[in-house]
Amino acid sequence: MRIILVGYGVVGKGVTTILAKRYTEKIASYGFSPKVVAIADVDGAVINPRGFSPEKLEKFKQKGYPISADPDFGHPSMPVLEVIESVEAEVVVEVTPVNIKNAEPALSYITKAFKTGKHVVTTNKGPLALAMPALTELAEHNNVFLRFSGTVGGGTPMLEFAKRCLAGDKILAIQGILNGTTNYILSEMGQSHISFQEALANAQKLGYAEREPSMDIDGFDTACKTVILSNWIMGKKITLKEVDITGIREVTLEMLQNAAKNRNTIKLLGTIDDNGAIVKPAEVSWTNPLCVSGVLNAVTFQTEYSADQTLIGRGAGGIETANAVLRDLLDIRHKLASKLLS
Amino acid sequence: MRIILVGYGVVGKGVTTILAKRYTEKIASYGFSPKVVAIADVDGAVINPRGFSPEKLEKFKQKGYPISADPDFGHPSMPVLEVIESVEAEVVVEVTPVNIKNAEPALSYITKAFKTGKHVVTTNKGPLALAMPALTELAEHNNVFLRFSGTVGGGTPMLEFAKRCLAGDKILAIQGILNGTTNYILSEMGQSHISFQEALANAQKLGYAEREPSMDIDGFDTACKTVILSNWIMGKKITLKEVDITGIREVTLEMLQNAAKNRNTIKLLGTIDDNGAIVKPAEVSWTNPLCVSGVLNAVTFQTEYSADQTLIGRGAGGIETANAVLRDLLDIRHKLASKLLS
Repeated sequence: MRIILVGYGVVGKGVTTILAKRYTEKIASYGFSPKVVAIADVDGAVINPRGFSPEKLEKFKQKGYPISADPDFGHPSMPVLEVIESVEAEVVVEVTPVNIKNAEPALSYITKAFKTGKHVVTTNKGPLALAMPALTELAEHNNVFLRFSGTVGGGTPMLEFAKRCLAGDKILAIQGILNGTTNYILSEMGQSHISFQEALANAQKLGYAEREPSMDIDGFDTACKTVILSNWIMGKKITLKEVDITGIREVTLEMLQNAAKNRNTIKLLGTIDDNGAIVKPAEVSWTNPLCVSGVLNAVTFQTEYSADQTLIGRGAGGIETANAVLRDLLDIRHKLASKLLS
Repeated sequence: MRIILVGYGVVGKGVTTILAKRYTEKIASYGFSPKVVAIADVDGAVINPRGFSPEKLEKFKQKGYPISADPDFGHPSMPVLEVIESVEAEVVVEVTPVNIKNAEPALSYITKAFKTGKHVVTTNKGPLALAMPALTELAEHNNVFLRFSGTVGGGTPMLEFAKRCLAGDKILAIQGILNGTTNYILSEMGQSHISFQEALANAQKLGYAEREPSMDIDGFDTACKTVILSNWIMGKKITLKEVDITGIREVTLEMLQNAAKNRNTIKLLGTIDDNGAIVKPAEVSWTNPLCVSGVLNAVTFQTEYSADQTLIGRGAGGIETANAVLRDLLDIRHKLASKLLS
């Protein structure tokens, strides 16, 4: 399986690390042989149609930025779209930064990949949040797969769990703590009795929150994930603009203390049910399995026959998200094998 | 798919309910067409080679015991082994009571099914706890499938989660609260400040504990599930006698109160790691996702690349366990379809 890696930040480097490290390990036992034939970002690309060796992938990381300066394989300032179009490969792994205004440039990369017959694995919520119904249709139309496990739950396979393990049941509703940053802030406020501003400053100090934290604390990240769950798991074809979004800026220490009197706390919840998709802070009982603290994520699937099922794990992290990419690559390989047989 | 149902207690009746109810619903959309051709228990059997209609299955339930008295299809006192041997079917669904002394009669039923070329779905921990390595070998030898989702986690797909969603990762250790009865007792002791004996009596009153509660409170049920997780998920081929087992009889209110001072509680944990398999009460932090209360079950998979992942749900219940049987039947059907194609 030949792979074009688009984006070379934390997740992109994580992907090369995992492929390099695990190539000789377990992957081999799945009969799966991934080859990175190109790495592209805004500064250019490195290309090797025969695939970069695990050693070479490791070296790229140590050389520092930009990789397109590599004397043997570098193509400085080659546009990403040209790389996707011209390099022969089966899969594009798209791990560029999120943009929820117009989803670019990721949206163009993904559609270019589809149009040139390439499957796409992405960890980028932007294109999915803004255009998931259209993107899944376009993938089908071009007879390729679109996979995005890393967009929800990071390393925790929330999407796969619902798809693969709850087959034969009916999922009636989904509710989750889908953003680690806001969960850290709310947990800190409650446990250390500090204000929202103090907790946010702590989260920024620890690297859990960005300097421009709006994406997390205004609920947009949670809303993007809610859109993805809604489309993929519930079959409700919505986009970001159909989600009713309230962030956590207005949550005060006093509100948390009042909730605690009833053995509750306040969490930022994304919910999908018959009433649509909504993101807002809400009281959750201490004994509710959803009630996880720190940067953990949790999601509860309300099923018709097997009651509520809750999955908890770390929602982010470069290497965890890179591992989700690996799971998606294995899934595509598995799907292709079944197709060949049918 | 023709099914022989062996055992007609709560789970057995639940299986017929689910098949009857869901036949017209979602199952059809999977292209899956299950037919119950026989129901057998210690008193005899009902047999219909063309399959019982959903209406007939509902009627059996309402008629009361024993079904073998049915004037049209009844075979009073026909031995179960003879039913398994003589009735043509693809799958035996074995849901008889658990026996962890010698696993009989379920063990004989399952081996007879294998030897006559039938796949087996069981919810019975006994045969697996005592002979899982041998049974999986025998199934392979006879080229049939053995499935047992309902034995661990009831309706919560703990086994499938680990197998299907963590593929491509390495599971380093498993730790879980695998028994709802003991979890209810320990939760009640801590929350209502009562003794073990009082909490046990409450659990018995509510139907959460048996009159003869040893299987649960002495840790045997947890140990059986630990054996199944060890064999199926970790590939460590052990049986019940290799598990170091301590139950909860010695857990006192004072121990729980002391733990609470450190924001911990005491849970009965089944653990599988490099040191082997062990069942014993242990302190767990309130903030540990495993720390669920009441009759909930929870299991944490410690993975190499995706950190800890915890799955929480109801561990028991007739209809939930019956739904696990349905999931297993769908899985076997899926596996058979892949086989045909290859």
